[in-house]
Amino acid sequence: MTANKSNKLLHLTIENGVANITLDNAPVNALCGSLIKALKQLLGELSYNKDVKVIVFDSANPDFFIAHVDINILEEQGILEELAKAAPEGLNIFQAVGEMLREQPQVTIVKLKGIARGGGAEFVAAADMCFAAAEKGKLAQCEALMGIIPGGGATQYLSSRMTRSRALEIILGAGLFDAATAERYGWINRALPDNEIDLFVNQLAQRIAALPEGVMAAVKKVLAPAKNVEGFKAENDGWATLAFTPRTAEIMKKVMANGAQTVAGELRLEELLRNIV
Amino acid sequence: MTANKSNKLLHLTIENGVANITLDNAPVNALCGSLIKALKQLLGELSYNKDVKVIVFDSANPDFFIAHVDINILEEQGILEELAKAAPEGLNIFQAVGEMLREQPQVTIVKLKGIARGGGAEFVAAADMCFAAAEKGKLAQCEALMGIIPGGGATQYLSSRMTRSRALEIILGAGLFDAATAERYGWINRALPDNEIDLFVNQLAQRIAALPEGVMAAVKKVLAPAKNVEGFKAENDGWATLAFTPRTAEIMKKVMANGAQTVAGELRLEELLRNIV
Amino acid sequence: MTANKSNKLLHLTIENGVANITLDNAPVNALCGSLIKALKQLLGELSYNKDVKVIVFDSANPDFFIAHVDINILEEQGILEELAKAAPEGLNIFQAVGEMLREQPQVTIVKLKGIARGGGAEFVAAADMCFAAAEKGKLAQCEALMGIIPGGGATQYLSSRMTRSRALEIILGAGLFDAATAERYGWINRALPDNEIDLFVNQLAQRIAALPEGVMAAVKKVLAPAKNVEGFKAENDGWATLAFTPRTAEIMKKVMANGAQTVAGELRLEELLRNIV
Repeated sequence: MTANKSNKLLHLTIENGVANITLDNAPVNALCGSLIKALKQLLGELSYNKDVKVIVFDSANPDFFIAHVDINILEEQGILEELAKAAPEGLNIFQAVGEMLREQPQVTIVKLKGIARGGGAEFVAAADMCFAAAEKGKLAQCEALMGIIPGGGATQYLSSRMTRSRALEIILGAGLFDAATAERYGWINRALPDNEIDLFVNQLAQRIAALPEGVMAAVKKVLAPAKNVEGFKAENDGWATLAFTPRTAEIMKKVMANGAQTVAGELRLEELLRNIV
Repeated sequence: MTANKSNKLLHLTIENGVANITLDNAPVNALCGSLIKALKQLLGELSYNKDVKVIVFDSANPDFFIAHVDINILEEQGILEELAKAAPEGLNIFQAVGEMLREQPQVTIVKLKGIARGGGAEFVAAADMCFAAAEKGKLAQCEALMGIIPGGGATQYLSSRMTRSRALEIILGAGLFDAATAERYGWINRALPDNEIDLFVNQLAQRIAALPEGVMAAVKKVLAPAKNVEGFKAENDGWATLAFTPRTAEIMKKVMANGAQTVAGELRLEELLRNIV
Repeated sequence: MTANKSNKLLHLTIENGVANITLDNAPVNALCGSLIKALKQLLGELSYNKDVKVIVFDSANPDFFIAHVDINILEEQGILEELAKAAPEGLNIFQAVGEMLREQPQVTIVKLKGIARGGGAEFVAAADMCFAAAEKGKLAQCEALMGIIPGGGATQYLSSRMTRSRALEIILGAGLFDAATAERYGWINRALPDNEIDLFVNQLAQRIAALPEGVMAAVKKVLAPAKNVEGFKAENDGWATLAFTPRTAEIMKKVMANGAQTVAGELRLEELLRNIV
């Protein structure tokens, strides 16, 4: 079975039980309200499609998987209200994105061939698996440089994947991590040569989709992700006390003026953020 | 003190407080009912031997540590009933093998110089430590390809050793992992050059056996393995719903016809299983 | 802001929100009662200094970070009684050192450019982060060779950082681990070339200290270290049953006679301990 579907932000292909979702939100795949809404709708539809066993996410952008949450997201007020209303009890709208992914009945795999920062890195960590291109795949929790802390699940997801020491280094150091280091820290499954990642992930996805009936669902049930309600609450409390301060608003304004959310600026976002006085 | 004991499946040597148990169930060291019974008896006897501080497991077979649970194990009905009767409350007979190993008063170390799949990989993961030969040591949870999920503790043991992402990759991808990747994932202590593993493990075992009285027992008590009763129940529930279906019976029959449980077939078992239509 | 303070055991520099504490207890930086007392006093003072965001620990000794707890510590009876009185309910005085570090409001980073064994390795593991020099940074829990088990938190700290298999190898094998292996096991954040570690750690510390107000505290609050009261009790029970036996007293006496707590002896302490008959 093959199917194709496209809107301006997501491209879907389904073949042999594997759905491929390509994110396409130029110029840098910022996670805006519209993209969250489109993902929510598409994943909701796929969750009823019993023929789809695996969902692979990649990006139409050669440099970015998901830049981070759109810095201008507050302008999308209508969509934000809608998302807030739909978020599960106890989760903010960003945490709800990751948890939506974690509850997807299919196996979800990120093919990381570009940069994912902030909410984009949280999307990666929420997926069942991630394989990253050794050269171009990179991850960062850059929130600290913006005057906030991660607010979309990273504190919980990182804590379940690596030592507290390394989670602190990632969040407080706020640097851009290459795929090899991300692998050593447990952040991703593994780093693969850039010219092998497509073959590797596609083969893995096809093999999982070809498993005898019932196996994938049984494994996902036994290895269901832990839910730490208090952890999400603590994260949101920390995030919310910092997210709406004048200092953070000022950083966001200045970094946008200096090139954030352009390709050139996002390739050196840490530098832009560290240079704000 | 030196002692030697042998039955057709297990060879025992004891020297300076280290017991060496060599598994020998030609042609591929399948974990059959008789082998489980022999292990149970020998480990039971050793548990009363205060002079033995460390138990090292290796294999008489140059290619296999334990192939996996014997595909024909259901033919050993008498032994299975006996094992089921003796299994602790809440554990199936395969989970009982691993938990027996985890409750052994001695330090248990696997010297992995060949392939361990399925129930054999679960035996490895239940031991206190595992060192693997970089070239020849390999691990797989191949159950998914047989239409089932691991039912002898792997879902619990892997979850305590590595990220959920990697446990999902191992169980759902069902591939054969080399020792270096197994080390990076936390599956084993470490991979060692094939010509160094004997010296390394023997020296480690001797050193532990030579520790001052009471130290080994005190460490094992403080670092006692966690028991997750609900996790074992969930695993068994998932396994039991798939293990006795016509589809699984058919796979087992076909893979036996195509060479499973022969040396040549087991060296490429994943290929045999993936080629079943 | 820059400040300098020195007593015979600790040297303090503060610059741009980063405090650097250099341990200096010749000849091998043994963790004696006086050093614990000095650390307690200095960390207590720093905990009220809102200008200090990060504390970096290093050593004045080119070979040792902290050798281990001073073998002659029982001679400092007055200080020990003082420390025991001040220790939190349920913690022995060595566990209290690590937990003091873990409750420090600042981010604590160890720059490990020499050997840390026993209580010194526990100090390292209690810090928020540790970066080790690939050549000279080394770690060991050597207690087993002394007839005891770690009694200052190692059983808990190691268990939260790595698999049980590796914690058992470290504690029971009691070997000296190089920085690369310590990194692979999760014991430290990472190993760095010896000529890069100063630059790396200083830059990381400066970056964290320069984060917008409130971020560091919010992250430390959300990622607060777990407290396992029962684990500490179990560790102390195991330690206390072995620490005051004639066998341990004899080992301590003999190893002191053979060169322990001298530079030459401590460079090969495992050998000294294994050769005691």
